[in-house]
Amino acid sequence: MASNSFGSIFRFTTWGESHGEAIGCVVDGCPSLIPLSEADIQPFLDKRKPGQNKFTTQRREADEVKILSGVFNGKTTGTPISLIIYNEDQKSKDYGDIAEKYRPGHADYTYQMKYGIRDHRGGGRSSARETAMRVAAGAIAHKILASAGITLQGYMVQMGDDAIDRTHFDAAQIEQNPFWCPDAEAAARWEAKLDAARKDGSSLGAIIEVVANGVPIGLGEPIYDKLDSDLARAMMSINAVKAVEIGDGFAAASLRGEENADSMRKGESGVEFQSNHAGGILGGISSGQPVIVRFAVKPTSSILTPVETVNKSGENTDIVTKGRHDPCVGIRAVPVGEAMMASVLADHLLRFKSYR
Amino acid sequence: MASNSFGSIFRFTTWGESHGEAIGCVVDGCPSLIPLSEADIQPFLDKRKPGQNKFTTQRREADEVKILSGVFNGKTTGTPISLIIYNEDQKSKDYGDIAEKYRPGHADYTYQMKYGIRDHRGGGRSSARETAMRVAAGAIAHKILASAGITLQGYMVQMGDDAIDRTHFDAAQIEQNPFWCPDAEAAARWEAKLDAARKDGSSLGAIIEVVANGVPIGLGEPIYDKLDSDLARAMMSINAVKAVEIGDGFAAASLRGEENADSMRKGESGVEFQSNHAGGILGGISSGQPVIVRFAVKPTSSILTPVETVNKSGENTDIVTKGRHDPCVGIRAVPVGEAMMASVLADHLLRFKSYR
Amino acid sequence: MASNSFGSIFRFTTWGESHGEAIGCVVDGCPSLIPLSEADIQPFLDKRKPGQNKFTTQRREADEVKILSGVFNGKTTGTPISLIIYNEDQKSKDYGDIAEKYRPGHADYTYQMKYGIRDHRGGGRSSARETAMRVAAGAIAHKILASAGITLQGYMVQMGDDAIDRTHFDAAQIEQNPFWCPDAEAAARWEAKLDAARKDGSSLGAIIEVVANGVPIGLGEPIYDKLDSDLARAMMSINAVKAVEIGDGFAAASLRGEENADSMRKGESGVEFQSNHAGGILGGISSGQPVIVRFAVKPTSSILTPVETVNKSGENTDIVTKGRHDPCVGIRAVPVGEAMMASVLADHLLRFKSYR
Amino acid sequence: MASNSFGSIFRFTTWGESHGEAIGCVVDGCPSLIPLSEADIQPFLDKRKPGQNKFTTQRREADEVKILSGVFNGKTTGTPISLIIYNEDQKSKDYGDIAEKYRPGHADYTYQMKYGIRDHRGGGRSSARETAMRVAAGAIAHKILASAGITLQGYMVQMGDDAIDRTHFDAAQIEQNPFWCPDAEAAARWEAKLDAARKDGSSLGAIIEVVANGVPIGLGEPIYDKLDSDLARAMMSINAVKAVEIGDGFAAASLRGEENADSMRKGESGVEFQSNHAGGILGGISSGQPVIVRFAVKPTSSILTPVETVNKSGENTDIVTKGRHDPCVGIRAVPVGEAMMASVLADHLLRFKSYR
Repeated sequence: MASNSFGSIFRFTTWGESHGEAIGCVVDGCPSLIPLSEADIQPFLDKRKPGQNKFTTQRREADEVKILSGVFNGKTTGTPISLIIYNEDQKSKDYGDIAEKYRPGHADYTYQMKYGIRDHRGGGRSSARETAMRVAAGAIAHKILASAGITLQGYMVQMGDDAIDRTHFDAAQIEQNPFWCPDAEAAARWEAKLDAARKDGSSLGAIIEVVANGVPIGLGEPIYDKLDSDLARAMMSINAVKAVEIGDGFAAASLRGEENADSMRKGESGVEFQSNHAGGILGGISSGQPVIVRFAVKPTSSILTPVETVNKSGENTDIVTKGRHDPCVGIRAVPVGEAMMASVLADHLLRFKSYR
Repeated sequence: MASNSFGSIFRFTTWGESHGEAIGCVVDGCPSLIPLSEADIQPFLDKRKPGQNKFTTQRREADEVKILSGVFNGKTTGTPISLIIYNEDQKSKDYGDIAEKYRPGHADYTYQMKYGIRDHRGGGRSSARETAMRVAAGAIAHKILASAGITLQGYMVQMGDDAIDRTHFDAAQIEQNPFWCPDAEAAARWEAKLDAARKDGSSLGAIIEVVANGVPIGLGEPIYDKLDSDLARAMMSINAVKAVEIGDGFAAASLRGEENADSMRKGESGVEFQSNHAGGILGGISSGQPVIVRFAVKPTSSILTPVETVNKSGENTDIVTKGRHDPCVGIRAVPVGEAMMASVLADHLLRFKSYR
Repeated sequence: MASNSFGSIFRFTTWGESHGEAIGCVVDGCPSLIPLSEADIQPFLDKRKPGQNKFTTQRREADEVKILSGVFNGKTTGTPISLIIYNEDQKSKDYGDIAEKYRPGHADYTYQMKYGIRDHRGGGRSSARETAMRVAAGAIAHKILASAGITLQGYMVQMGDDAIDRTHFDAAQIEQNPFWCPDAEAAARWEAKLDAARKDGSSLGAIIEVVANGVPIGLGEPIYDKLDSDLARAMMSINAVKAVEIGDGFAAASLRGEENADSMRKGESGVEFQSNHAGGILGGISSGQPVIVRFAVKPTSSILTPVETVNKSGENTDIVTKGRHDPCVGIRAVPVGEAMMASVLADHLLRFKSYR
Repeated sequence: MASNSFGSIFRFTTWGESHGEAIGCVVDGCPSLIPLSEADIQPFLDKRKPGQNKFTTQRREADEVKILSGVFNGKTTGTPISLIIYNEDQKSKDYGDIAEKYRPGHADYTYQMKYGIRDHRGGGRSSARETAMRVAAGAIAHKILASAGITLQGYMVQMGDDAIDRTHFDAAQIEQNPFWCPDAEAAARWEAKLDAARKDGSSLGAIIEVVANGVPIGLGEPIYDKLDSDLARAMMSINAVKAVEIGDGFAAASLRGEENADSMRKGESGVEFQSNHAGGILGGISSGQPVIVRFAVKPTSSILTPVETVNKSGENTDIVTKGRHDPCVGIRAVPVGEAMMASVLADHLLRFKSYR
């Protein structure tokens, strides 16, 4: 069933397999007259791009995006924007083992059972390579948000079992280390830990946080298209994500009612909240406070440590997933999480306009 | 924008305010020839019904559901099933305070800002009363699942900061205490704690787990309608829910790759997994293992402890939310979580059929 | 599959069978703060109501609509509006023949084959009674359109093979005869013809035209949600409708390019078209001219003349459809066509706002 | 708003402008394991391709389609199928006049007013070039239908005001003339008439019929996704189409009830209908008879005869649309109509499966 599209008014559809000829997406519903060129999208892709350091896969691709439609004389026209990235690296690899064996933690087995066939080259459609097109679509969403004064930023708050110290939080640090980590000390620890995990043929998980500022009051549609519901769906649709929370999230369960309530006071420019346990969303609708979402990424399943599995004939075997794999896929999940949040917010911003 | 519907093939639309004349839902897309009467739905509503003990609101309503369409001679006809519950209790209350002041933690403020108007009677549309119709729709979903051998059960695994001991897990206990708690010792502790919180004019949060058994391999549509994405959206759309996780969820971030991988072995009746960190979903598709979802419910915002807030004129004031309120809304979230999971699974079961 | 809903932003879902307990609809996506009460809806239902003269079915029902949700203090709140009409007349009839035999021209056979069951009472869900709820939803759409200065009117332009004379067109006549006919002479002829057909135990078809004025430039979404595509779908979804055309419609096929082109001139208040062959829609987008749609209604299939058919066992038999039936269902299709057009325009009006 | 997609389970999204770098589509929801290569799609495109004779535009393009994703080892994988055609001819033309003046009958004016910008090169997104991708998507739909024994064929039944003689109908003739005309004598007349119109700098309209055979009973979803509603929407979404009818269509309005009823008899292999006024659809559901749809195409608006219009500044002027234009766009509408009908049927075939 058609399921490769995301969003309602601002809606994108992605296509393409990891090692097919190209990957792409069609962004539909973008308003007209927004200045747009490849130069607006490429920096977001570069942020996600593999091969940048020893902690991301060594697959070296230019990942150069091309706009094929929807832009005329440097501006969007309101028609669908088609984006494409040609895969340069698709022929060099030997997939013998992946073709015959199911990698535990991967979608190999479920795709094969569901469809009776799968494109095993590099994971095919289930590969994290698909997320490059989310980032491309998200770059367009960012342009829509920027025109409304909305900004957002993602960063890693935990690698493996090692969380940042919130008192060390320094936004300026985020782009200063390979982990998008706002705590310089944590970043230093993570570097050593991830290096050790990589050398062990193992991998680490991560927790990512994305915060949007400038979100106006009123985004989100009760009851089933709540802003938090759509954010939860968006984040959980990212490869390897296993958990999502808004504001205090699971920790809210341990608070008492009076601790959790974000009390309100008259402020200089209107109502002010005195805390933000709710993460900027009340009843599914943005409250004007920063919108805060957090999600967990499991450790990479593709590791050099042998794991027990079965082959396509159902016989027992072991698998070692060689090749170029990130020891912590959570790193690249940062720009992907930003893109998904940008897309959800852009969609709800446009939905909101139909009321006014 | 139309946003009061949930699901694609199996799709329900709810309507009604807490203290309006009635609440209801329309269930569209239910297959024909399924035996159905009010007696199939009422037990699920009774499980959620308020006024059953001192831990749920004393609002006493029969909550008697009536089928208005879509059933003929005791069987579904494939046409929309309209369900209605008349509100018996809607006129007795004085809402003066809620009408004039915004309750922190509630949707009062965001509804007013978004719509310029709100039905303040008992929270109107944003009241947890809406979830009664989710439970009614879920009861129909259960009938569809039952015909495919799928069953599911929810229970509370943490109240406030007090979690169950997993080694005490006893499914037979779940219906033996007011908390749907599978750990008899925890249930005893919770009773004392919740009673204390209630007497303090405070409230407690909770964590709920729902597990589905018998889910066939192949449910869930990559990339954006993954089974876990849809479950995350479903759970996060429930009032007061702030977090959702699948399988190991946030804990997966702390595992190493080889710990998190659910290895596979040849079993008597096909492939067997040796663990279930993934919660029964790989690449967004069910793996044949139990599907496990967990969500956090914040403490009730309606408490007797005064909280700082503003009134409709933007002036500072305090609010004490009198009336009948559950000290732990997580209790009633158990049947609601079951209903949402049943609806997601029924929808994906029907979607899956279009492939075969 | 869920298919009882119509529209995207302004979206209604209808439910109920002809002789069930009630029929109803849920209107979702209506903006807030629109004054609304039953008195705004009832006149539209009265216009469609059966039993008004000898040319519409003698089923006498008050068809009194009740608003169950979504309105507070006389204004819409932005939450779903639930409407209900209780069927007063549902128990009096003997359906033996319809239960056992398939009425040619009706949906009896296809419903039975598709669903394996059907509610045969009065045609069940396939009855024209369903259209009452379209009219109710359309009344709300009219309120939205009115606030934007859009008005619309339907009328019958042909009964059987007898068309009006366009030179006699007099809008004031439309409400002066039972046929919503703008040509007084044609109305007089039709009265005699329809009376004769009724006495013969036969029925007549009709062609209806609906025109909207004041539609702003820009409604309609290329490529697949064009304004004309959505109007075609809307009209074709009405019971007994077999054809739809926009502007000159089929006649356009016989024109030459220079005849069909609506040339443009500079006018006092902007661009003016010198003709309207296109029916107010160019490239799927409204041009600012009147939007003109026309549709054909087949003759009522329920007639007293015996027709050859088969019964549920597949054996040959004849059927005479006794009971109260309109000899020309086209009469009641006039307000239904207006309602569908109003709903399409209201939806596109709201969609259009998301661009601005 | 996102509106460049068509279908629900079988769903395609098209993108691209007439003279942009490429056009393409993404077909989502195609079942897996269907043999598919470019060779399955190209013949359908060749049928529609311009430049084949003097009656279709002289734009000469290879229109060579390329599959970029969704197919592995010659079979569909269940993932989205991306198709692309590079525009070879996009740079050669001078669009000065179209850029500055609005062509009557075209979407120039409405696009400009709606979006505040338009890609005027060759009509941009509103060009009939977009329909090439409908044909490509339709080719995949044909593969799905073929596996269920469903076939369909389109042909022209009227050019200008000259209709075929139904007693001359010979399916073998359809591919023997440039008009897909099943009446050899009509084809001969049309050739002379169209040649004359072309020389006059004028153009002719047309009426197209498409018939599907082998459609099983039960396709179509009441009430708003009826098979006929979806066909009407599909056909009306094609450029230049102004009218759609099912079965007898408008002519049904002139029949009496007993004439219009398709009576039923016991046949050798089940129920047999004795006529097909209904066009194979009853109550929105296929009856097992051939499904018959007909649509009108207006005469080409791009003609050499000068037409009065205004320019972008709103000043009066005349326009002569030079360049390569079909004197009867109805010719190329035949394969497009087939593609849209194939897509609607494939979608409903897959939807139907979810019931079984």
